[in-house]
Amino acid sequence: MTEIRTVETLRWEGDLPGHVVMLDQTRLPVEEVRIDVRTVDAMVDAIRRLAVRGAPAIGIAGAYGVLLGLQEAYARPDGALSPDDPDDVVGRTRECAAVLARARPTAVNLFWALDRMVASAEARHTAGDDAPRIVAALLAEARAIHAEDAAQCRRMGEIGAEFLRPGMTVLTHCNAGALATGGIGTALAPIYVACERGVDVRVFADETRPLLQGARITAWELERAGVDVTLLVDGAMAGSMARGEIDAVFVGSDRVARNGDVCNKVGTYGVAVLAARHSVPFYVVAPLSTFDPDVACGADIPIEQRDGAEIRAFGERATAPAGVAVLNPAFDITPAELVTAIITEVGAIERPDEARVVAALRAGGRAV
Amino acid sequence: MTEIRTVETLRWEGDLPGHVVMLDQTRLPVEEVRIDVRTVDAMVDAIRRLAVRGAPAIGIAGAYGVLLGLQEAYARPDGALSPDDPDDVVGRTRECAAVLARARPTAVNLFWALDRMVASAEARHTAGDDAPRIVAALLAEARAIHAEDAAQCRRMGEIGAEFLRPGMTVLTHCNAGALATGGIGTALAPIYVACERGVDVRVFADETRPLLQGARITAWELERAGVDVTLLVDGAMAGSMARGEIDAVFVGSDRVARNGDVCNKVGTYGVAVLAARHSVPFYVVAPLSTFDPDVACGADIPIEQRDGAEIRAFGERATAPAGVAVLNPAFDITPAELVTAIITEVGAIERPDEARVVAALRAGGRAV
Repeated sequence: MTEIRTVETLRWEGDLPGHVVMLDQTRLPVEEVRIDVRTVDAMVDAIRRLAVRGAPAIGIAGAYGVLLGLQEAYARPDGALSPDDPDDVVGRTRECAAVLARARPTAVNLFWALDRMVASAEARHTAGDDAPRIVAALLAEARAIHAEDAAQCRRMGEIGAEFLRPGMTVLTHCNAGALATGGIGTALAPIYVACERGVDVRVFADETRPLLQGARITAWELERAGVDVTLLVDGAMAGSMARGEIDAVFVGSDRVARNGDVCNKVGTYGVAVLAARHSVPFYVVAPLSTFDPDVACGADIPIEQRDGAEIRAFGERATAPAGVAVLNPAFDITPAELVTAIITEVGAIERPDEARVVAALRAGGRAV
Repeated sequence: MTEIRTVETLRWEGDLPGHVVMLDQTRLPVEEVRIDVRTVDAMVDAIRRLAVRGAPAIGIAGAYGVLLGLQEAYARPDGALSPDDPDDVVGRTRECAAVLARARPTAVNLFWALDRMVASAEARHTAGDDAPRIVAALLAEARAIHAEDAAQCRRMGEIGAEFLRPGMTVLTHCNAGALATGGIGTALAPIYVACERGVDVRVFADETRPLLQGARITAWELERAGVDVTLLVDGAMAGSMARGEIDAVFVGSDRVARNGDVCNKVGTYGVAVLAARHSVPFYVVAPLSTFDPDVACGADIPIEQRDGAEIRAFGERATAPAGVAVLNPAFDITPAELVTAIITEVGAIERPDEARVVAALRAGGRAV
């Protein structure tokens, strides 16, 4: 058994004051560049331009982003922090969370992590902690969110690997790997764990237009980890299914509704429909932080509409007439009926529906 | 009623000697550049690198390519042609056809047009024509193939327009427009005719990876013709179907099997499956020259596998790890059961099957 080594998506560097070091994923696969993120605005920008992306990773980035905001407020000329008013710390935590929550609308992990940061600040305040202790507790909370995510990835990988057999070819869409999380990924975690166990699986990666996360990030990440990966355009997936080349689909999610409907990167729904037609099991791998029990079904999940420029040009080069109308939703909805199982850190929710989703959330300690 | 003006894909310039002038479609939408094609090798190259593409257009290009080969053989220093041996003309026609037939493997129109050129040479020879007359007859035959294609496009447009109602949104995949034919297109012909008749329809164009014919060519061609077009990535089509944004699908074909299975640009099969799931009618528009009654079903159609470089980079810019394995089929197969109708120049073949396909071919004068 060889432990797979995956790439680090982001980390908190130093203590307090500190900053976030993150891989700028927009520059993959050409360059592996790490950037320092030191302000709330810089973090919002990094999330918006997808330097960091993937629902769990955005949650972690948001949590650290709150710390960046507190540092901006309380930094002294010598660099040390001097918070003195507990009410002000809680207020600023709420403000930073509100700013960060506007970075992107769909992945619920961001809101979940920010809510957790605000709740932590409030709890420490209620417990009578002074301002420096509240700030220190918030760094501990952000680090806990990060560490828990890594542990959940590992656990989902172990649970999901049970669905893999030697020689299987797994199709994945977009990137739900290490680079979407604080650990070994969601959809790719079962593949990494299977490879560690000597279960030889192969991955077909959809390139995932418009931003090519499958080609630029998933293929890059899997190759680095020594996993056998083949790239194909999104349109080629259907023919591969028809020819029997795909044994299972593993994807991540940006938000799971209470009824088990799954919001994920645009194109996922088409994969799910093809998988159902060809009796290929369709697995979604998502931690409970990706579930939103307040949203009854997929139709209620807000879908981010991105700029048409992402489709009209690639780099400097025009790929379409300059002014052409573009429809560019970043996500789509896969109805629960097409999902074989949602693999979470508390187990696999097979044939998901509201009752099973609620039961899993309760098993994970979530008040539903 | 305003006649729509579409772009000219290619033409034979001059008489004998002459040459082919063609729009270099690889340079769209950035530049509208016409190139002169003067040799068989140059024509094979133009077809392979997709300067000219689309099944009917490739057939016309192949027919003119035979003339280019005869000119190469019989050109005198003063530029005039001096064929003198009828046997040699027939032999060289066969040789040129054989070379041109190796340009691309899937679209049957190429083989159909080349067979027709060879049969024409043989028939004139049998009828006792001298060598110059056979060559002149071959130019007339190539021009006839071109003119008939234009007339068939118009006729398919008229038949297909009957399926369109004001306010409908039509999804198309790849480019089966004027730029894929010698006329107003196959899949886009009904849209052009509807617009001429004042039936206001709107087009959603899949960008069609890897070579973006939908973005670069379809969107460009429709915009120029004044048709309302919206571009979306291939993966976004499924969500649009689910939201009820698509009223009908119109696509072309590179080869239709005897049982009605349809080979078309990679990704088409996925569109057909989604259309069926959402009860959206799925129309294929193809002249009888695209039918191959010698192929029993889609599984027997050879699928061109193209270079992985088309996916690993866009222009100079890497889009994936340099050495990553790539699966790059250019086409896929849509089973007849998913096709609402195949619209041909002799009428619409509704719910296509072998009996109906054979009947249509016989109605068009094809020996089956």
